[in-house]
Amino acid sequence: MSEATTTDLYEVTMAMSYLRERMTGPATFSLFVRNLPPHRGFLVAAGLESSLDFLSGFRVGPEDIDAFAAALQRPRRDLEPLLGLEFTGQVRAVPEGRIVLAGEPLLEVTAPLPQAQLAETYLLNQLSHQTAIASKAARCLLAAAGHPVVDFSLRRTHGPQAGFQAARLSAMVGFAGTSNVAAAAAEGVPAVGTMAHSFIEAFATEEEAFRAFARSHPGPVTLLVDTYDTETGVRIAARVLRDLERGPGSAVRLDSGDLGALAVRARAILDAAGLPDVQVVASGSLDEYAVDELVRSGAPIDIYAVGTRVGVSADAPYLDSAYKMVEYDGRPVMKLSSAKVTAPGPKQVFRRAGYADVIALAGEQPPDDVSRPLLETVMQHGRRTSTRPTLAECRTRFAADLAELPSAARLIRSPVAPRATVSERLSALADRVRRRIEEETQVPVMRS
Amino acid sequence: MSEATTTDLYEVTMAMSYLRERMTGPATFSLFVRNLPPHRGFLVAAGLESSLDFLSGFRVGPEDIDAFAAALQRPRRDLEPLLGLEFTGQVRAVPEGRIVLAGEPLLEVTAPLPQAQLAETYLLNQLSHQTAIASKAARCLLAAAGHPVVDFSLRRTHGPQAGFQAARLSAMVGFAGTSNVAAAAAEGVPAVGTMAHSFIEAFATEEEAFRAFARSHPGPVTLLVDTYDTETGVRIAARVLRDLERGPGSAVRLDSGDLGALAVRARAILDAAGLPDVQVVASGSLDEYAVDELVRSGAPIDIYAVGTRVGVSADAPYLDSAYKMVEYDGRPVMKLSSAKVTAPGPKQVFRRAGYADVIALAGEQPPDDVSRPLLETVMQHGRRTSTRPTLAECRTRFAADLAELPSAARLIRSPVAPRATVSERLSALADRVRRRIEEETQVPVMRS
Repeated sequence: MSEATTTDLYEVTMAMSYLRERMTGPATFSLFVRNLPPHRGFLVAAGLESSLDFLSGFRVGPEDIDAFAAALQRPRRDLEPLLGLEFTGQVRAVPEGRIVLAGEPLLEVTAPLPQAQLAETYLLNQLSHQTAIASKAARCLLAAAGHPVVDFSLRRTHGPQAGFQAARLSAMVGFAGTSNVAAAAAEGVPAVGTMAHSFIEAFATEEEAFRAFARSHPGPVTLLVDTYDTETGVRIAARVLRDLERGPGSAVRLDSGDLGALAVRARAILDAAGLPDVQVVASGSLDEYAVDELVRSGAPIDIYAVGTRVGVSADAPYLDSAYKMVEYDGRPVMKLSSAKVTAPGPKQVFRRAGYADVIALAGEQPPDDVSRPLLETVMQHGRRTSTRPTLAECRTRFAADLAELPSAARLIRSPVAPRATVSERLSALADRVRRRIEEETQVPVMRS
Repeated sequence: MSEATTTDLYEVTMAMSYLRERMTGPATFSLFVRNLPPHRGFLVAAGLESSLDFLSGFRVGPEDIDAFAAALQRPRRDLEPLLGLEFTGQVRAVPEGRIVLAGEPLLEVTAPLPQAQLAETYLLNQLSHQTAIASKAARCLLAAAGHPVVDFSLRRTHGPQAGFQAARLSAMVGFAGTSNVAAAAAEGVPAVGTMAHSFIEAFATEEEAFRAFARSHPGPVTLLVDTYDTETGVRIAARVLRDLERGPGSAVRLDSGDLGALAVRARAILDAAGLPDVQVVASGSLDEYAVDELVRSGAPIDIYAVGTRVGVSADAPYLDSAYKMVEYDGRPVMKLSSAKVTAPGPKQVFRRAGYADVIALAGEQPPDDVSRPLLETVMQHGRRTSTRPTLAECRTRFAADLAELPSAARLIRSPVAPRATVSERLSALADRVRRRIEEETQVPVMRS
């Protein structure tokens, strides 16, 4: 089976109907996040590159047809119109690492209707998950206020694939390293990590453990000091580091207890031992809220290692994302039921100073000379139109967008997210489409 | 690179030290969940089978050595002692699908110390993630109180791999189907799903959309009725189903709005149209809390489709899991700092009636004639000792354990989790080890 089967069944049933009805005209779908989760002042666009990989490689093969037929309990021949189907469409998207707001399209697909529909599940999965994680990691970076932050999340992410993305995306927003060896190797991110409590316990004493570790690892070492009693652990670490003249670049790691208070004690012990350049690393249940408190309290912590809560975006593990058809065969469309009204037509987002973004129709001119469009054409005729950006390029994009982000949006607690406005032309089109649907369906629909 | 690099770097640094120090004696590590998340009365053990796959295939290859050397910025030759390392140990574990409590080992590894250490990250990742998801899905099954529940989560899980597991694990606890085609095909789970709002919008009217769908899908169909106005949608669906004589087995799906109230209206419209056997499917932001409310309100909903919130276990997206060394080279060990005291020694859990579980030492006799051990030997000398269970076998295990679970633990809101007790022998050992560590380290340690 190919990745074409990594899909909700309904994409397949719909594609079958479209082919039967010869509804293969071009459709545009828009993927966006309706509302930000609580405690989010912005989102960091992510997931585009793996989405483009999926679309480039999309091809319904014979085994996929078997899987579709089995799923539908239909004869194989009923599915054969889908055999060999590839993605031949266009993608316009916000490049990875850019900051986006609620309601702004992250990506728009324009392709023959069955193709655009079959892409839905995978694209939503990639962009929702990765944007959630990148946005969470970005908040940790803000909370750390210039201190290095590293990723320790692999052990509790939702599978190894999610762990890989947590490492990649946290590096994309500026983390200094990851514990994840596979991700470090694949993405060129510094790898970090030293020892677990079990290492200390495997030796008769902490001191023996520290000395053994130093023997097999020349250069700076990080010693975990909280296996038994933290202050004693720091004293033993200080003695070993001084004896071996391994201070500069080395560190002690605190992984439990009152990290702020223990950091103060550790710093004092290290300084008194003549080891002012031995750093203090803090880890253990950290996220942007905890890091923010520690930084504000002035805790003498040099490096923050965040893990589980960031790798799963614990306070907002999903986004309110949608992939909505906005145009079919030249006709703008929209959904009207309940609160989930969607705006019709292919779109562009213009970024103005201070994130006074304007969501406009794709063909519109920028509202002024200094506005810049967020969506770029990244795929034409099913092929990438540019090379894959490096992680460093994405990091540069993020840093540039972050530098312009209003301070209220950067707050860790109760941030105020900038709100994009809608252009006059898009607003007028939405009114026209709403009236047309009312006439065609004879249904009085609510105004948004 | 092999999956051996899907690891935290510190597992590698520790393994290097162990090899250098010739510390390759047998170590036992215990993997357990310290405390249940809020709103959990039990956990469903999961993740064992993929963990055993990992261990069976574990072999540090030349490319892994390159990745380790790059991560550590060390010459390749320093890593070569790890080349060819395989897992040759024993695994005792709770089979997938069984219900477990806080503090009970899900899995214990006994292997030469470097091997047992190198397995940590991957095993924690698999068991933490999968146990969290299986437990969340189990609660949905309980909330539905006999109504079929299906999985629609793929679009917002943390990547496709996590989506696959959500489908597999929800089927394991008794879901009736999944929208995930790949998982349905691989695991033999019924696939479900019909149409999106975009399908309706692609046609000039809802009625045309419904008729076109029915043309290409013989047999029962599920029609999505909330694209414009839900009650009108139900009326149109009723007309189409009646005209085409496609009522039995067919359904309407409600995906937005006040699902309970709309279900009442939909049921009335369908009954009035002479379609009492057309079912009502509800979806849209559902989880066990929402399903519980709908069921308790008596809403005439026949099938519940849960998605995102279950696939990411939104209210508890991670578990407080740990992989702790409990014995090395015949010597029981434990960690003492802060609140994270771990009990020493290899363990067994005996299940007594009413989940009055006893956590005991591995060699102990059962506390009584009716107690049954939870951990089974599943791997010896690095090889599985039994065949992989089918999903149906795991489902049977879960159903049997669920049938015995006290009703207070099954509650959706404020459940009361049974607490395992500790055997006298384990308790006595913990005291002895604590005293020994105090003497050896000269550190007064807290009592737990």
